[in-house]
Amino acid sequence: MGRWEPGARERLVVAAVDLFTEQGYDATTVTQIAERAGVTKSTFFRHFPDKRELLVAGQETLSRLLSEGIAEAPADAGPLDAVAAGLVRASSAMGPMNRELAPRLKAAVTASTELQERDALKSVSLAAAVTTALVARGVPEPTAALAGELGVLAFKRGYAVWSDGAPDTQDDLSEYTLAALDELRTASASLH
Amino acid sequence: MGRWEPGARERLVVAAVDLFTEQGYDATTVTQIAERAGVTKSTFFRHFPDKRELLVAGQETLSRLLSEGIAEAPADAGPLDAVAAGLVRASSAMGPMNRELAPRLKAAVTASTELQERDALKSVSLAAAVTTALVARGVPEPTAALAGELGVLAFKRGYAVWSDGAPDTQDDLSEYTLAALDELRTASASLH
Repeated sequence: MGRWEPGARERLVVAAVDLFTEQGYDATTVTQIAERAGVTKSTFFRHFPDKRELLVAGQETLSRLLSEGIAEAPADAGPLDAVAAGLVRASSAMGPMNRELAPRLKAAVTASTELQERDALKSVSLAAAVTTALVARGVPEPTAALAGELGVLAFKRGYAVWSDGAPDTQDDLSEYTLAALDELRTASASLH
Repeated sequence: MGRWEPGARERLVVAAVDLFTEQGYDATTVTQIAERAGVTKSTFFRHFPDKRELLVAGQETLSRLLSEGIAEAPADAGPLDAVAAGLVRASSAMGPMNRELAPRLKAAVTASTELQERDALKSVSLAAAVTTALVARGVPEPTAALAGELGVLAFKRGYAVWSDGAPDTQDDLSEYTLAALDELRTASASLH
């Protein structure tokens, strides 16, 4: 099968994650990232304001897609069905490049407190985005907050299983995030 | 009613949070914190390795107390009852000083991305601690992960209401975290 053909932006992300893994986040400079990606420093700065934002960019896309999917779910969909629609939309943003990068990204995050904090803020921001989108649909608090946490947990758990799989299989991330949401729905029933 | 009588450690925390709020986290030095607290720099370093750890110390205590409360809950307690026992134990660590500091701490966090990231990692670490403690009791995944998120959400929601209350009232944080857990338990039933 054909591999994904990375443009400058993708090459920068791959180079950055590799360098973070090899030598740590703090020790990695924008110059090194650009050099490894085979582009100039100005190309880096056309895509990202700094090395940290390079990691944040994906998060904003995810938040936006989750919110859009929830907003556009049928009016009579319950909170978790709306969350499912958000997961399908957000999962569509993750392709072969994300899957191939996932183990290296995980190693880089494990090795850096700064990236762990960044990653944690990402989870908290995603949950807040889901909660806000549900409240906008008329879901009352604290149901919206709870469904927000469930949605993020489903995304993280589904993503972990998907990215651990063989990189050559073509299965879509949404199968995994929806399966994780179903598991959590069942688990939530077992809490009573 | 008598106000709490702060020792050097408490005075350092108060001074730090005030300075973070006034001038930002990055611009605040250990020297300034010690000066404002009326202690020497060596006293600061007897209590904390650096200014960041000053904020982390409380989190480790919370994680430990949550885990201990869960571990010591009766063997026949369900996951959420075990979480309730953890919340009671962790809530006992928060007294009048925490309540008085809460609004300033909130302002400092709102003003600093670095503190937001630190705070987000705190939430994620607490959820992981609760999940681990539940798994150790034999609670299966993903129920343990879900109950971990519920426990942290209950703590944060209860803490927010408690710390918004009049500082002179003597009510215990545990009333608020347990009420929040009950609300979430009900909300979780409404998801089906």
